[in-house]
Amino acid sequence: MCDDRAARFLRETPLWKLQAPTLGLKAAEGIELWLKLEHLQVSGSFKARGMMNRLLAHDIPASGVVVASGGNAGIATAAAARALGVRCEVFLPGVSPEAKRARLRALGAEVVVVGEQYADALAACLARQRETGALLTHAYDQSEVVAGAGTLGREIEQQGGLPDSVLVSVGGGGLIGGLAAWFEQRSRVVALEPERAPTLFRARQAGEPVDVEVGGVAADSLGARRIGAIAWEITQRQVRDALLLSDEAIRAAQLWLWKELKLAVEPAAALPLAALQTGAYVPRAGEKVCLVICGANVDPASLA
Amino acid sequence: MCDDRAARFLRETPLWKLQAPTLGLKAAEGIELWLKLEHLQVSGSFKARGMMNRLLAHDIPASGVVVASGGNAGIATAAAARALGVRCEVFLPGVSPEAKRARLRALGAEVVVVGEQYADALAACLARQRETGALLTHAYDQSEVVAGAGTLGREIEQQGGLPDSVLVSVGGGGLIGGLAAWFEQRSRVVALEPERAPTLFRARQAGEPVDVEVGGVAADSLGARRIGAIAWEITQRQVRDALLLSDEAIRAAQLWLWKELKLAVEPAAALPLAALQTGAYVPRAGEKVCLVICGANVDPASLA
Repeated sequence: MCDDRAARFLRETPLWKLQAPTLGLKAAEGIELWLKLEHLQVSGSFKARGMMNRLLAHDIPASGVVVASGGNAGIATAAAARALGVRCEVFLPGVSPEAKRARLRALGAEVVVVGEQYADALAACLARQRETGALLTHAYDQSEVVAGAGTLGREIEQQGGLPDSVLVSVGGGGLIGGLAAWFEQRSRVVALEPERAPTLFRARQAGEPVDVEVGGVAADSLGARRIGAIAWEITQRQVRDALLLSDEAIRAAQLWLWKELKLAVEPAAALPLAALQTGAYVPRAGEKVCLVICGANVDPASLA
Repeated sequence: MCDDRAARFLRETPLWKLQAPTLGLKAAEGIELWLKLEHLQVSGSFKARGMMNRLLAHDIPASGVVVASGGNAGIATAAAARALGVRCEVFLPGVSPEAKRARLRALGAEVVVVGEQYADALAACLARQRETGALLTHAYDQSEVVAGAGTLGREIEQQGGLPDSVLVSVGGGGLIGGLAAWFEQRSRVVALEPERAPTLFRARQAGEPVDVEVGGVAADSLGARRIGAIAWEITQRQVRDALLLSDEAIRAAQLWLWKELKLAVEPAAALPLAALQTGAYVPRAGEKVCLVICGANVDPASLA
C-alpha cells in the first residue's frame, strides 16, 4: 500500500512478543502477547503512515498541504511534508497550547491560529484550501490515510505471522479501518474506545454514524466527534467487538506500561492493555493477542 | 549461559534496526543502526540478566540474598529474588532518596538504611552476609553477573546476526565484560564512559584498575569508583577503544532519544548515541552499529 518513498520515510517499528506472566496478568494462561510498538513511529504515532501515503498519492501543488489539527494528525502531516520538502500549513484554534505550536514550527510547518474552537480552525483550513488549491489531509477519513494505516497490519503479519486477535483504540477510525481491511476475518480485530469518546459504539447503537460528546483522558487523540465513513463501512463488515473502557482503567494501564515495561505512551495507546487488565476482553488459552501501542505524544512528566 | 528458569523470568528485548537517515545523523552514509532496547528488560535495565544468573547458580539459603545498592543492581536483585520467591535485603545509606526505598519495598525487598554514605551501607551489608550466610550479589564484579550480561550479546546475534560494532556504556564493567566475552574479536566492542566517571579509561592510563573520582549526569548508574577485575581482564584482551563523552553530549543524546524516537531512557543509556552524534565514534560506510540502550530508570519528568 505504501511505495518505497514511504518506506524510506517511515520506520519499521518493533513487534515485541512477551509471555503474559511477565505482564502480571491473572487470567492469562499460556497467552502470547504481541506489543506492536508503533508509538516509536516517525512523528510519535501511526498517523505518519497514513499522512505519508496521502501525500505520495498526489502531485502536491506549490501551495503545499493544509491540515487542521494540533494533535497527532497535524504532527504527522508536518513531518511527512518536511520529508518530501513541500509546504505545510497547520490551522489551530486559540485554545491550542503553545507547546504544540512550537513542535509544529520545529517541523517546518506554518502555524495559523484562528478563532477559539477546533471548528473555527477547520473552517479556516477548508477556506484556505479552496483559495490556494493545497492538498488537504484529514485525520482519518480519507482512503489513502486509512490504507496507509493498514500497512501497520501488513507489518505485524510480516514480523510475527498472523495474530489471533488485534486490540486497537478507535477515535475517528482510521487505524481500525486500515487494520480491519488488512486482516479481514483472518484475525479478530477488537475496537476499544473510552467511555467518554464512544464514536463507534454509539454509531452501532444508532445504526449509522452519529455525533457524540467527547472528553476524558484520551480526548486529545481519540476525541473525534463521529466515526469516519470509511471506518464505519469497513468495521460493519469486519469488526464484531466494540468495547468501552473507563478513564480510570485507561490511566492505570498507561501508568503500568511505564512502571513495569518502561514504555512511555499516551493514554490512547493504553486501551489494549486496559481491556486485558479489566477483563473487558478475555483471551482464550494460548491466544496470540496483538496490542497496538499507537502513540507516544505525551508529556513525560505526566508519567511520574 | 542462562538456563530456562532465567529465560522465563527475563524478557527477550527488541532489536530495532533503523536506517541512519531517520536518526538525523550527518556522517552516516548507508550506516545501519541497531538499537538494542534493553531498557525494556525486567527491572528496567540489563542488570536483571546478571542478577538472575547469579541467584540461579547457587542454592540460596533461608536468609536469602543481600545487596548494597539503591540503583539498578539493587532493583534487579530484588526483582530476581521476588521471581524466585526468596528473601532479599537491600542496604542503603541515609542519603538514598525515599523513592528508591519505596520501589525496592514494592518489589518485596527488606530495606535497611545504614549510615550516611554508600561505604557505610556496603560495610553493613558485608557484615550481615557474614552473620546470616545470605548470598551476596555484586553490581558488576562476579563471574555469574558478567556471564548473565553476556546473554545480551548472544540475544543480539540471534536476533540480528553479527554487528560490525557494539557501542556500550561502562560503569563497573559488568556489561562490557559480558559483551566482549561473547563477541570476542568478531565484532568491535567500543567502551564509552562519561568524562566524569572514567573508570576504564583511567585504568588503561595507569595500566591497572585504579580508584577514580566519579560524578556527573550518569553517576547513578555509571558511578562505580573502579573497573571490576573481571571486566579489566576481559577488556584488556578484547576491547581496543575506550572513549570519553561530556555530560552535555550525554544529556543532549538522552533528550534526543525521547524527542525523536520516544525512548525514555536514563543518561547511561544515551552514551552510544552521543558517541555518534559528537563524532567521537565514526562508523565507516555501510557499518552495522549496535547501540546498547541499557537502562530506563529515569524520572520521566526529567525528559520534559
